[in-house]
Amino acid sequence: MQEEYKKHISSRFDSELESLCNQFIAMGGLVEQQVSDAVVALIEGNLELAKAVMEKDDVVNDYERQIDERVELMLAKRQPAAGDLRLTLMLSKATTDLERIGDEAAKIARVASQMDSQGHSPRGYSESRNLSAQVCNMIHEALDAFARFDLEHALKVVKTDQKIDEEYASTMRALLTYILEDNRYITQVINVMWVLRAIERVGDHARNVAEQVIYVICGEDVRHIDIDQIQRRVESQSEAQKGR
Amino acid sequence: MQEEYKKHISSRFDSELESLCNQFIAMGGLVEQQVSDAVVALIEGNLELAKAVMEKDDVVNDYERQIDERVELMLAKRQPAAGDLRLTLMLSKATTDLERIGDEAAKIARVASQMDSQGHSPRGYSESRNLSAQVCNMIHEALDAFARFDLEHALKVVKTDQKIDEEYASTMRALLTYILEDNRYITQVINVMWVLRAIERVGDHARNVAEQVIYVICGEDVRHIDIDQIQRRVESQSEAQKGR
Repeated sequence: MQEEYKKHISSRFDSELESLCNQFIAMGGLVEQQVSDAVVALIEGNLELAKAVMEKDDVVNDYERQIDERVELMLAKRQPAAGDLRLTLMLSKATTDLERIGDEAAKIARVASQMDSQGHSPRGYSESRNLSAQVCNMIHEALDAFARFDLEHALKVVKTDQKIDEEYASTMRALLTYILEDNRYITQVINVMWVLRAIERVGDHARNVAEQVIYVICGEDVRHIDIDQIQRRVESQSEAQKGR
Repeated sequence: MQEEYKKHISSRFDSELESLCNQFIAMGGLVEQQVSDAVVALIEGNLELAKAVMEKDDVVNDYERQIDERVELMLAKRQPAAGDLRLTLMLSKATTDLERIGDEAAKIARVASQMDSQGHSPRGYSESRNLSAQVCNMIHEALDAFARFDLEHALKVVKTDQKIDEEYASTMRALLTYILEDNRYITQVINVMWVLRAIERVGDHARNVAEQVIYVICGEDVRHIDIDQIQRRVESQSEAQKGR
């Protein structure tokens, strides 16, 4: 997949920007793996894996630092204009989101470690696995949309986030009802609630990345705009592209 | 205060950057007020105020959009170098943090509205008030450090965040112990836990802003560095400045 990304990007940008894009995508792949590993560590009670995720957060942070340095250098030395400038700014913003995704993964791993001593929750694991699979897919799709400059893919990520938020809210209600009825596992269930919230945040950050991708492609800021409006804008852009 | 900020900034930058800095500071003042109002709305059960905070989130979002547009224009038309470039990039990143602070304030206001129907919590209000006063002060100090280019002030904010994290953790433990002993108010206490977590996040974002301020002043990326290292770097910078 990474190979295919590279092909798409190299046809579009010069080598310096291309290399920056590839580093961004590599960072995205890493944080996607971190989230996935953290949730597996939780569900399987795998302490080794939890520890590995926490340790690898340093690698995520290094990526962020390096990308930001390169963005600054790019702006200082090459003074990119128009689309290249938007892309550079997008990388700067979206890298922050990837780093925060890494933070959430490390938090989940930390809860996974605690639960080994505090005991496991009788509820909420399958929902965690299910939601985490979906948000990992969102990260993947957002990177894919970025690499292919694919508006519709990016829009799909934004839409999925709405669905995630609804599933998250209903799962939280169910868990709350559960501890109200049977309070033997309050601590453990609340731990799972923190995990679910972290996963929901990952979805928010993946959505932010997708919105930044839309900004790069369309040159329009679609943050804080409701989804139907985004859809209409994307459609009119697609029409315009086809008409070329 | 805002007047004094303006004086400091105008002596340092040209009028375009100066105006951008002032808009950033105004946005910071707004989100500080939003957090403070949201917590008052919660504690006093003031639904009107909660509604006002949620509505005003649009104004916060408009600020973000405007500042980002101006950053892009600045980079495209003026191609700032060195310190001005760092400042422009810092504004781009830190604006995202201010916007997320606004999001957290809106979330607190939403919980405040819910609690009106779900009932109030017997615990956690004074802790919420106390922590929120501290994080609002962090926002204020971070903006102050920015306006004055004051490294030591910025460092103080980074340090305070550590203290906040500790207070947050101990308050959460106390609330958990409380609901384990008396489970009549689980829903309400969990609502207060969400509020506390939102407040703790505000502290994280204020810390991010302060780290960005350090980056502008020193030209060094101090994210993900432990606090003693930051302290040493700041001190060596201060020495160098005095020696000039």
